[in-house]
Amino acid sequence: MTLVKAYAAQKADAPLAPYQLERREPGATDVEIEILFCGVCHSDIHTARNEWGGAMYPVVPGHEIVGKVSRIGADVTTHKVGDTVGVGCFVDSCGHCANCEDDLQQYCENGHSQTYNSLLQDKKTITYGGYSTHIVVKESFVLKVSDKLDLAAVAPLLCAGITTFSPLKHWNCKKGDKVAVIGLGGLGHMAVKLAASMGAEVTMLSRSPEKAKDADELGAHHFELTTNEDNMRKLAGSFNLIIDTVSAPHDYNAYLALLKTDGVMVLLGVPPEAMPVHAGSLIMGRKSLVGSLVGGLKETQEMLDYCAEHNIVSDIEMINIDQINEAYERTLKGDVHYRFVIDMKSLKEG
Amino acid sequence: MTLVKAYAAQKADAPLAPYQLERREPGATDVEIEILFCGVCHSDIHTARNEWGGAMYPVVPGHEIVGKVSRIGADVTTHKVGDTVGVGCFVDSCGHCANCEDDLQQYCENGHSQTYNSLLQDKKTITYGGYSTHIVVKESFVLKVSDKLDLAAVAPLLCAGITTFSPLKHWNCKKGDKVAVIGLGGLGHMAVKLAASMGAEVTMLSRSPEKAKDADELGAHHFELTTNEDNMRKLAGSFNLIIDTVSAPHDYNAYLALLKTDGVMVLLGVPPEAMPVHAGSLIMGRKSLVGSLVGGLKETQEMLDYCAEHNIVSDIEMINIDQINEAYERTLKGDVHYRFVIDMKSLKEG
Repeated sequence: MTLVKAYAAQKADAPLAPYQLERREPGATDVEIEILFCGVCHSDIHTARNEWGGAMYPVVPGHEIVGKVSRIGADVTTHKVGDTVGVGCFVDSCGHCANCEDDLQQYCENGHSQTYNSLLQDKKTITYGGYSTHIVVKESFVLKVSDKLDLAAVAPLLCAGITTFSPLKHWNCKKGDKVAVIGLGGLGHMAVKLAASMGAEVTMLSRSPEKAKDADELGAHHFELTTNEDNMRKLAGSFNLIIDTVSAPHDYNAYLALLKTDGVMVLLGVPPEAMPVHAGSLIMGRKSLVGSLVGGLKETQEMLDYCAEHNIVSDIEMINIDQINEAYERTLKGDVHYRFVIDMKSLKEG
Repeated sequence: MTLVKAYAAQKADAPLAPYQLERREPGATDVEIEILFCGVCHSDIHTARNEWGGAMYPVVPGHEIVGKVSRIGADVTTHKVGDTVGVGCFVDSCGHCANCEDDLQQYCENGHSQTYNSLLQDKKTITYGGYSTHIVVKESFVLKVSDKLDLAAVAPLLCAGITTFSPLKHWNCKKGDKVAVIGLGGLGHMAVKLAASMGAEVTMLSRSPEKAKDADELGAHHFELTTNEDNMRKLAGSFNLIIDTVSAPHDYNAYLALLKTDGVMVLLGVPPEAMPVHAGSLIMGRKSLVGSLVGGLKETQEMLDYCAEHNIVSDIEMINIDQINEAYERTLKGDVHYRFVIDMKSLKEG
């Protein structure tokens, strides 16, 4: 075991604080990573505060990890010491179910191992995430990261990037498509950048006029206010694809009306309760309401390569680890453009 | 104008009764059809009783029409006098919108003309349906019907058949797929027959144990009770495709849980109110909740040809036109296996 520095929540209503974590010695197929940067995802907050239930304290959050390989196991062939690598939402899965065999580890039928507050495949070892100086991960769950990009700004790609890239690819976003994005946060800003990079004509749908400038800067071609009913009527039947990143309750039917025939609305956010859907909202125009969860390992690597090729990263605000509790409060208020990323040097040297 | 015998509802709370209807003389591209059989669809009842609003009395229902061509216009090339033909839910559409150009007349952006209680493309002439001895329809909306099959039993294919065939084809039902059908009525019984004919392994999902025998006779391979919670848990993740024909309120989430990863649940019924959908029901397994409305003309012809080739018709109970009000009551109680069809001889000679 190696003792490493970390930040943890010790209970639901306690702020995150310094913690010493035991990491396993790298096994034969393990990679030890010295973490350089870790993004701050909304899920981190939900889990640290046990808002989804099931928190196993102490919770060390963080699943948007970029770092350098510091040690490798004897049988590791795909990574070497010094490589720049990333770790996303999962660190293992069963590997033999139909979904794992289809490179859809995110839907592993036997339960994948999430990067934190989860169990490894032994179903007893608790996982601890990226708010730490080092992490040890099975080689096949470690992604290659290009050094061409700003590595701090790459970190959020490991969750926000793949969560938006995967549905855009799966539902075939392509040149000339009209794509709308609902919600301009960590996910939404990546959806705008990625859809635009794929050649789509991107519309930001928002309740907040002050977001128009931001949407424009991110590459959205249009900005439409959803609070204006005339505007919503005018937009009926406009879009091939809607990427809905909103977790607050909202009227799905109002947005389904904006789809063209055979259009698809992808839910990425999870409102706290079920939202009413009129069958007619789907039947009239053969529309689809669908959901998508992050992406598999193969697709995550494809996304990282795509972003390196197209020079796409997240817009971030860098913080030191001792600012994490303040960053949580600002994230909850939507006061971040668009993702906080922890500079892990501040933990190592702190 | 030609005066023809018909049955009409004169107001929402009146029984259907004999009525004399003026049909236009066939224009250059029109086909006049002597109606042999007309199916009784649930929509007929909703419209006759103005349950969906918008009834333009007198209402002559009927959009599952099979008959013989009795006259043709000068420019008609696709049908000739004596041909066996069918008419389904539409008799015209704009013909030039993106959906019409894609042979999706059911989603015509400028409003298609339904076979009854609708307006022709002049937006003023009211349409009257198949509860009549003759109908005059634009050539391109008249389908060819094979004489190989029992023509009375072909009639319901024009609505119930295409409404289930279209989503099975669109969502790629194929050999070995696991398909579930919810609701064993006019639509459900066709969904079972058609899915089985495509090589799918078909499961009937029902709240009524007494329907097991019927499902088996229609070709379902399995029958599963949805009232048994253990059973529902056992079925989780089982199906590629669910065809939901139920119009009564029901819990979509409970059925979405039965889909495999990437599974699709198709809504064909329209419950009176919106049904709650949990985002998580779609996100966990990248599932799709979709809708589908009958089918276009080209696909309807494809369906009729397919049914002739595979010897598929509806299971029907034949009635005389003067039994129509009693048939409505029995349809509302679900007391029909599985579609009433009016023998139009009873109107002609009545």
